[in-house]
Amino acid sequence: MLIRPAMNADEKAIWSIIGPTIRAGETYALPPDMSEADALAYWMGSDRETFVAEDEGRIVGTYYIRANQAGGGDHVCNCGYMTDLGAIGRGVARTMCEHSMAHARSHGFQSMQFNFVVSTNDRAVRLWQSLGFKIVGRLPHAFRHPTHGLVDALVMFQPL
Amino acid sequence: MLIRPAMNADEKAIWSIIGPTIRAGETYALPPDMSEADALAYWMGSDRETFVAEDEGRIVGTYYIRANQAGGGDHVCNCGYMTDLGAIGRGVARTMCEHSMAHARSHGFQSMQFNFVVSTNDRAVRLWQSLGFKIVGRLPHAFRHPTHGLVDALVMFQPL
Repeated sequence: MLIRPAMNADEKAIWSIIGPTIRAGETYALPPDMSEADALAYWMGSDRETFVAEDEGRIVGTYYIRANQAGGGDHVCNCGYMTDLGAIGRGVARTMCEHSMAHARSHGFQSMQFNFVVSTNDRAVRLWQSLGFKIVGRLPHAFRHPTHGLVDALVMFQPL
Repeated sequence: MLIRPAMNADEKAIWSIIGPTIRAGETYALPPDMSEADALAYWMGSDRETFVAEDEGRIVGTYYIRANQAGGGDHVCNCGYMTDLGAIGRGVARTMCEHSMAHARSHGFQSMQFNFVVSTNDRAVRLWQSLGFKIVGRLPHAFRHPTHGLVDALVMFQPL
């Protein structure tokens, strides 16, 4: 699997990955009816670096990395990852997260923080824990899940 | 004390309050060298409502309120408060926070979250606790304090 910076020419492939996840509204606090243009403007914004994961020439995942805060908080980074639904279970998210941790270290970030991991997203919580993240905060009923109703969101963190 | 929506004509007064706090870099994760224009664009952004606190016709504090997340997280709001350094200790922040909680309830928010309370800001931590906020997360060494060095930041939360 190759992880490389996203280019404008990747927009269609990126939307084909982030669109279904945004529409499902189960794992990200983004408007489920967000337009393709708004979603791409968010995911590939000028305040972050965006990468894609290629497997045999096909884009199977994408992630962004940015400073989580400005000023005295800009040594902590934040990432978001999405995997193509057809490529779940093949280690795409793990590979992207490992890449992001190495990238973050090489750019001087000292820690990585996930602000809003939906607590019902067991697969993600377990994956982040296996990669060294700790749950450092729990936001009670902070997410309206389309089928589970009000569920907690987790803050996850690790020094790099 | 009167709390009212901020108007463009308040910009000079608002900058006179938020400028020194941003420049000090001790309590907010904003760039200490942020320009006046950028600071006002942030504090009075279109994604939030901004208020000022008036005491005998003089603006002594300002706060904003916004949804803390989009989509399934937009029932939780987030606020930032700043008090004029010459008016510290007169209950300005408490009055603004109480106003924000009432405003949030009336606009349908179900909870209020502070994402990044610098742990050395004892006055703020005690005030938010006295107003019902609980510490639900601790971000280790997430803030570079200009004199204390790396200190924790707190996530504080309360149902409304």
